[in-house]
Amino acid sequence: MEYKFAKRIQNLRASEIREILKVTERPEVISFAGGLPAPELFPVKEIKDVTRLVLEENGAKALQYTTTEGYTPLREWIADRTNKNMGSSFGYENILLTHGSQQALDLTGKVFLDEGDVVLCESPTYLAAISAFKAYGCRFKEVPTDNDGMIPDELESILYSTQNVKLIYVIPDFQNPTGRTWSVERREMLVQAAMKHNIIIIEDNPYGELRFEGEMLPSVKSFDKTGLVICLGTFSKIFCPGYRIGWVAGEEKIISKYILVKQGVDLQCNTMAQMEIAKYLELYSIDKHISNIKKAYKRRRDTVVKAMEEEFPEGVTFTRPEGGLFAWVELPPDVDSRDVLQKCLEKNVAFVPGGAFFPNENRQNTMRINFSNMPEERIVEGIKRISDVLREFIHAKLQASLGD
Amino acid sequence: MEYKFAKRIQNLRASEIREILKVTERPEVISFAGGLPAPELFPVKEIKDVTRLVLEENGAKALQYTTTEGYTPLREWIADRTNKNMGSSFGYENILLTHGSQQALDLTGKVFLDEGDVVLCESPTYLAAISAFKAYGCRFKEVPTDNDGMIPDELESILYSTQNVKLIYVIPDFQNPTGRTWSVERREMLVQAAMKHNIIIIEDNPYGELRFEGEMLPSVKSFDKTGLVICLGTFSKIFCPGYRIGWVAGEEKIISKYILVKQGVDLQCNTMAQMEIAKYLELYSIDKHISNIKKAYKRRRDTVVKAMEEEFPEGVTFTRPEGGLFAWVELPPDVDSRDVLQKCLEKNVAFVPGGAFFPNENRQNTMRINFSNMPEERIVEGIKRISDVLREFIHAKLQASLGD
Repeated sequence: MEYKFAKRIQNLRASEIREILKVTERPEVISFAGGLPAPELFPVKEIKDVTRLVLEENGAKALQYTTTEGYTPLREWIADRTNKNMGSSFGYENILLTHGSQQALDLTGKVFLDEGDVVLCESPTYLAAISAFKAYGCRFKEVPTDNDGMIPDELESILYSTQNVKLIYVIPDFQNPTGRTWSVERREMLVQAAMKHNIIIIEDNPYGELRFEGEMLPSVKSFDKTGLVICLGTFSKIFCPGYRIGWVAGEEKIISKYILVKQGVDLQCNTMAQMEIAKYLELYSIDKHISNIKKAYKRRRDTVVKAMEEEFPEGVTFTRPEGGLFAWVELPPDVDSRDVLQKCLEKNVAFVPGGAFFPNENRQNTMRINFSNMPEERIVEGIKRISDVLREFIHAKLQASLGD
Repeated sequence: MEYKFAKRIQNLRASEIREILKVTERPEVISFAGGLPAPELFPVKEIKDVTRLVLEENGAKALQYTTTEGYTPLREWIADRTNKNMGSSFGYENILLTHGSQQALDLTGKVFLDEGDVVLCESPTYLAAISAFKAYGCRFKEVPTDNDGMIPDELESILYSTQNVKLIYVIPDFQNPTGRTWSVERREMLVQAAMKHNIIIIEDNPYGELRFEGEMLPSVKSFDKTGLVICLGTFSKIFCPGYRIGWVAGEEKIISKYILVKQGVDLQCNTMAQMEIAKYLELYSIDKHISNIKKAYKRRRDTVVKAMEEEFPEGVTFTRPEGGLFAWVELPPDVDSRDVLQKCLEKNVAFVPGGAFFPNENRQNTMRINFSNMPEERIVEGIKRISDVLREFIHAKLQASLGD
């Protein structure tokens, strides 16, 4: 039988990352490809405790259906935490629990995007946000972005010249894929610009708590006077991703729409997961846990940056993230990182080619390096192997250009 | 700020059931309104065991990201079970785990439905399927349905006269909301008709294992020679709904599209939930557990049917389901069950008015009665209270008509 699928999925392709991840499951592969937190840091013992307690104290409730909005004590904690970190003034009624932050992206698309609407994003931006939004038939405009965030003049001019802009999507802290952090001025500028044009900002912040040095900067939300910033967050990077618990925070008028949409999409999040995380937050210090994660990731960040400084050939540049999980590498313009990856896989080392992080521009001379999921000695060895391949490629291009 | 939401959500309303459920949380209310399994039957002790084991044996893996497809041992179990129950020949590669059966409905909409497509459904049909599909801009055609399923001539004539039919959605076993079960002949007829017109059938089967008497009938899938039937299932009614683990089973060519869509929607299901259920299935007998559920629900079904037979006034008819969680009541044509509900809530008894289960016809003289979630004495008392209200209404209508 010939199947007639919906138009929206005709151009859908498998996530490049997920396909590469399948290859990198072989233990001999040194992988900078995933975005996986370090599993050796998961608080397994504590989770065993809280799971037992939740089932003993309240088993029937934990295994039953619950509300779409989510478990109130957990929503209260998230509201308080968001207020502390991001200068908002949310109550639990401003929070909807989502099945991971990815679901918050999908719901955002469903709540806001009509076919033909435009989403403004950083260039590059998070791959899986592109695919979540694209399913609703939107187009993307990449706003030229430097080390401090979107460039104000470019943003202004795009806002003036573009019809149907519905959302501005940004990851201001330790961005995926670049690891970059927006300056305070640019954050304020973004809110001013969005306010002038009456456009919603999605501030996606999965990594903000993982700052290795310096002070936490005021969030984009903190400059919001009119309720146009919606905040996305998740327990995936500060606790465990297997739980699939994230959230969306915003004005009640907006959150009520997200709740309606989530009803039709999957009714509610896993009840046990919500109650277990709430119990963990009640009995243990997540700050201490996050501090352990930061120590480990900082060592890995130091290691990967030092290795790239020492090993990468001339003409290759890279970011030095102050937090998060990722660094970003730019190769000479004529080197295609997909070709580099092919060679690297032969040497059992992997990364994600950067092209897919550009919704339109497809700049293939870029790569994303994840440093959170590997011991230091493998990081050093992996960067050495990538450097060998890069040298070959750059040498070959040089020879070719000399031969011209 | 005035928010500009997507067109698709402008007509979205809160699920009537979820709104009623909020009222019925008060312990003094006897509620036939939910679709909740009996929490006192949840295997809490066994789940405590398997949770501990999963975390001890494989904690880091259980808390980490996993594949979109889901945990292979669980997919294998589901494939085997589906083959046994439904006469299919699936392997694990035909199974995608979903965040509850509700997500399987949403993904179905996303994979198949373009704006203006038509979904054929029973009349009445499952409320939350209507809202899941409607979000993709489809229209519904209700196929006239009797106690044996869709009426063949009516189905044929709709198929011949309707453009853009994309899906036929059915719940052949102990349907929600009616509790009805399709005859074998109608099942075969449905596949023949769908084959002739090259249309996908969605066979939603959350209750099939909960048969109180008689033999399990051959599934719709069992008549499928060309891969046009997609099967939806869930652990919510045979295990615990809090886990949010359901599945979709079908041809690999179809399932690969569902997987792509799920990647963008929420990456994957809760990893722990998948591994815990798999461990439970390995260590305990789910058949024994299901047999306990069936015993309890059968008693409640017997109780509710007997009470309705004894108490309901003349002119009120109802179904006598052979399994599942629901019975369906039809009132005289001029009685609106929403008015009845208002009066019933004053007497602390609740049910779901049936109108919302008709995507177009909106027949308001109907009501859905859930019998799985209450002890027998409360069922008897609740039906008595509803009967009192019904008598008042029917008496008043009679008086009014005599007065004409």
